[in-house]
Amino acid sequence: MQDFIYQNTTKIFFGDHIDAELNAAVTQFGHNVLLVTGGHSVHRSGLYDRVQKLLSDTTITDLAGVAPNPKIDSVREGQRLAKANHIDVVLAVGGGSVIDCAKVVATAANYAGDPWELVINRELSRSTPQLPIVTILTLSATGSEMNSGAVISNPETHEKLGTSGAHTPAVSFLDPRLTTTVPASQTAAGSMDIFSHLTEQYFDREPANDATKGMIEGLMRSVIKWAPVAIKDGSDLAARSNLMWTATSALNGTMGLGNRNAWSNHAMEHVLSAYYDITHGVGLGILTPRWMHYVLTQDPTTTPLFARFGRNVWGLSGDEATVAPAAITATYDWISQLGFPMTLPAVGITDDQNFAAMATAAATKLGNSYLPLDAQAVQTIYRAAQTPGLA
Amino acid sequence: MQDFIYQNTTKIFFGDHIDAELNAAVTQFGHNVLLVTGGHSVHRSGLYDRVQKLLSDTTITDLAGVAPNPKIDSVREGQRLAKANHIDVVLAVGGGSVIDCAKVVATAANYAGDPWELVINRELSRSTPQLPIVTILTLSATGSEMNSGAVISNPETHEKLGTSGAHTPAVSFLDPRLTTTVPASQTAAGSMDIFSHLTEQYFDREPANDATKGMIEGLMRSVIKWAPVAIKDGSDLAARSNLMWTATSALNGTMGLGNRNAWSNHAMEHVLSAYYDITHGVGLGILTPRWMHYVLTQDPTTTPLFARFGRNVWGLSGDEATVAPAAITATYDWISQLGFPMTLPAVGITDDQNFAAMATAAATKLGNSYLPLDAQAVQTIYRAAQTPGLA
Repeated sequence: MQDFIYQNTTKIFFGDHIDAELNAAVTQFGHNVLLVTGGHSVHRSGLYDRVQKLLSDTTITDLAGVAPNPKIDSVREGQRLAKANHIDVVLAVGGGSVIDCAKVVATAANYAGDPWELVINRELSRSTPQLPIVTILTLSATGSEMNSGAVISNPETHEKLGTSGAHTPAVSFLDPRLTTTVPASQTAAGSMDIFSHLTEQYFDREPANDATKGMIEGLMRSVIKWAPVAIKDGSDLAARSNLMWTATSALNGTMGLGNRNAWSNHAMEHVLSAYYDITHGVGLGILTPRWMHYVLTQDPTTTPLFARFGRNVWGLSGDEATVAPAAITATYDWISQLGFPMTLPAVGITDDQNFAAMATAAATKLGNSYLPLDAQAVQTIYRAAQTPGLA
Repeated sequence: MQDFIYQNTTKIFFGDHIDAELNAAVTQFGHNVLLVTGGHSVHRSGLYDRVQKLLSDTTITDLAGVAPNPKIDSVREGQRLAKANHIDVVLAVGGGSVIDCAKVVATAANYAGDPWELVINRELSRSTPQLPIVTILTLSATGSEMNSGAVISNPETHEKLGTSGAHTPAVSFLDPRLTTTVPASQTAAGSMDIFSHLTEQYFDREPANDATKGMIEGLMRSVIKWAPVAIKDGSDLAARSNLMWTATSALNGTMGLGNRNAWSNHAMEHVLSAYYDITHGVGLGILTPRWMHYVLTQDPTTTPLFARFGRNVWGLSGDEATVAPAAITATYDWISQLGFPMTLPAVGITDDQNFAAMATAAATKLGNSYLPLDAQAVQTIYRAAQTPGLA
């Protein structure tokens, strides 16, 4: 294992704790609250009103309408509101996009310049004091509820970049019952995001990391099993609970400890959704099996790990040369059965005029990935995603 | 999943960080340091001198000679030293026994009464302010380096009881290289402790806890694979690294989240080692397969989980009725091959005059275990451990 330093101080309330604990969790930091939310669902479900009632002794300023692939303009508006209203604490109620936006707002509240500078300069972001963040999670996907990361998009520059703040959320409320109304398509996209976080950390060159790889395999089996159940019956609480805790566990930092390599598919997908604003999980679902196929085909030394993936995650048996590609086929089939469009044209990317520019942008992040990828390799993977299947 | 609340603020330095980080990690809390250690190995290895040099600008008070199954008298001595020397921070250098003792001393330093009261009254212990604790781990086993628990023995009353303090250690240094000189027998006992922590949390009635069970299975495979390697060649750093991180991950709280039941084998073993002062891991190695055999035999509804254990942990295949008992045999054989004495007489417990009293004491903790056990059931398990094999 590679040396590492790890600390994660987020307090998790899993289950039915919101009514009893939310007010104290928020007001321990003060009474001027910036309430960050996304679309209409938080109103439709009654959650917005419930939160307002529970925080009746606070002064709430709203930052509403944060979009998927959250945009830097929302962060700028949040920065303005936080400064104007002397905000003490940021409460994010939503999924990963809302939480990510809230995190950068919490830093930008203490920053004089434009918040995009905090996105492109991770060190600057980490060293800027950050307001405390409380989250109420409504979608199992990104793990943002228990890590310090955030991904923000800048439509003007076609950039979608990850940054990191000084802290993880102080408190996160994870109640699976809040996710029973998530539509099937969003459940599928969220589940793919979970699965991708796990594969990004699993496919790593560190040879002596069985403890971590074993935990990842268990979490992979959990999302593989429960995503179809939740898609079929959104009210299945066992499915929603397992997906929620799997999502948080997958990206609270522990599953990459001791690793060597950078991620692959997220870099390629971030460029895709920066250009086309597609759903992050959908982009990952299209790219991931093509990336796996490319890696195994290009580098036979990856066969043992793909075979382990096949045996321990997909329950396959047989020799390595058979199990390794079969695991990739199983991955493709599982994603497809979740209801995903499996090609780029199916999500409206019918031309390839941006492939060269996107591949060049993605490749800047892929020099230390599991299989290092240059712009030509990324283009090959994008092009493979133009037609169904693994070819 | 059952509702839960979780927070763990321990900062982990894994690998080669001691020289660069120890002094700052300790002195952030002050300069009066209580240094808690066990036997001679910390001197023989040079670690004691190294720590003293790194902390040359502090005033160190020694609490040395903490024994395995740490005794309440060591805690009393630590309490006296901490008060007399106005200790700011407790530094534990050793294995789980040393760390456990240091934890209760850190609480007792702020307590006016006898520290045994903190052991028998968990709520009192948790509500008493605790001095900050820094640890340097030298044995992969108990997970004490990242949890708030401690187990203390009182030879006079034949009691060995678990308690819990207000905090987990503030900082823990985990350098696998410090464990390369651990003898084979202690490596085996420590590995059995890890494995037991995992089985205690795995065999649980909560039906919707696949995320946790899956992570546990991965950690089980890690200790099953690497313990024999480390026993054969103590200097194998891949083995030592995996065992160390598996030990910490197994008992930092995450692997029991969402569970329903109390533990089984630890309650039965604590009584055994309270009466006979045997090595904790050895007692667990003797009892665990007998407990499994008893549970599966007595309660056929446990067959599916034992079968899952057989498939996902031991790689067995076949129908449930075959795989479930085969998994227990595999467990017995693995423990035996680690070099364990596999019966109570083999560790010097040749009479059974205490079985009734021990079983009665253990049963007080077993009313909510995976299979609730009364004193008669515990006696049956103790008696099964008088002869080799699973009968």
